[in-house]
Amino acid sequence: MLRGCAARLRLRALGPGPAGPGTVWRSFSSEKDIHKDYAVPNPTWSEDLRLLYEQFMKKCEDGSWERLPSYRQHPAGGCSDFQARHLDPSATKELKSRARLFTRSFEDGLGFEYVMFCNDAEKRVVCILQGGPHLQGMPGLFHGGAILTIIDATAGMCAKRIGKVVLTANLNVNFKRPIPLCSVVVLNAQLEKAEGRKFFVSCTVHSGDGRTLHTEATSLFIKPVHNEHKTASGDFHNTL
Amino acid sequence: MLRGCAARLRLRALGPGPAGPGTVWRSFSSEKDIHKDYAVPNPTWSEDLRLLYEQFMKKCEDGSWERLPSYRQHPAGGCSDFQARHLDPSATKELKSRARLFTRSFEDGLGFEYVMFCNDAEKRVVCILQGGPHLQGMPGLFHGGAILTIIDATAGMCAKRIGKVVLTANLNVNFKRPIPLCSVVVLNAQLEKAEGRKFFVSCTVHSGDGRTLHTEATSLFIKPVHNEHKTASGDFHNTL
Repeated sequence: MLRGCAARLRLRALGPGPAGPGTVWRSFSSEKDIHKDYAVPNPTWSEDLRLLYEQFMKKCEDGSWERLPSYRQHPAGGCSDFQARHLDPSATKELKSRARLFTRSFEDGLGFEYVMFCNDAEKRVVCILQGGPHLQGMPGLFHGGAILTIIDATAGMCAKRIGKVVLTANLNVNFKRPIPLCSVVVLNAQLEKAEGRKFFVSCTVHSGDGRTLHTEATSLFIKPVHNEHKTASGDFHNTL
Repeated sequence: MLRGCAARLRLRALGPGPAGPGTVWRSFSSEKDIHKDYAVPNPTWSEDLRLLYEQFMKKCEDGSWERLPSYRQHPAGGCSDFQARHLDPSATKELKSRARLFTRSFEDGLGFEYVMFCNDAEKRVVCILQGGPHLQGMPGLFHGGAILTIIDATAGMCAKRIGKVVLTANLNVNFKRPIPLCSVVVLNAQLEKAEGRKFFVSCTVHSGDGRTLHTEATSLFIKPVHNEHKTASGDFHNTL
């Protein structure tokens, strides 16, 4: 299935691009882009986001907290085994040049502007987020999917700090109050329990000033077993 | 809060843009863009997506099914009351020029390529989706947040067919099998129960050939009561 996907991407690279016949898709991922850490301030950040960033950077000074760098593509490592099994080398190269991490696929300021910080002793990950105008749902508000996405990413990072490679198995989210578009929010993910390959993580979304609880979630992440990589369908959860 | 958001957007329009100092943000939303219906084939669609589209267009011929048009911004209508209460006219204009519906915020082929069809007699909405390379999570796979986003959009549309204006209150999702990046999937949303302002909707995500169940979800959507629009915090769920 992934080979088919890569083949489609290869065909598209030679065929008409989004701008119409005769054009080719531009490659969005130069070497510079791949190695750029996006979890640092840029000119589109609001004062609220900068203040929160500075507060957490101060907490990092004694080593209890750590800022987590963030890239548009997963660096090679824990997942290269998956790629080696499912994709031929040329397909992997094609995918690498086109694919972007969903949460880093927007230009600066338009989508998810965020940084995560972890405290491994407390098994916590905090994410500070400013949601840009391309994350709109109902006019003037964040799209529910954008909130779900950053919850999945933050809770998933909390599970990854122990499980290394994990996949979402369940997410249960209660939306309490809508989030105004372009505002700043703080996500708090806490590992509640680890049982073998299962990691239970809770997560809340508060306004930047901490006064409003917007959303709360519980989640379950699973570390795939090695042999599951061998299945053709990419079925990681068949032993769940 | 929304006035503050609009003010920030206004400042940014005059200040440095993503390309650095001295540039301004380009406006992505011309009148042509706003009125363009994106729920139709474009050159980036795969054969699988085209075939499914044609199958559902055939079902529309006897009037039992209907293709739902889709825009980058909500057309004026059910939500204009919200805007009138929370934003001054110039701010509304600013927001309108920058904001994009999250699921339509990507260039053709890179993000969510989808069309929804509804069958009001059966209280069902079907969404056919091809996920582009900018929706990546683990290498070669859809990001969990991208799946959650299209589930929220499809189940929400199912509730909207009766409730008109609704907001997500709860979403509970079980991820069964990961979805290969760039593949085609079919979402089936079914209204299970309507109780006053509450709409309970189930949703499944299958592979394009119907053989693999990737994800299943239950959800609750709420129709806000008129007076809730008056609260400064945008709290729609305070009577839930």
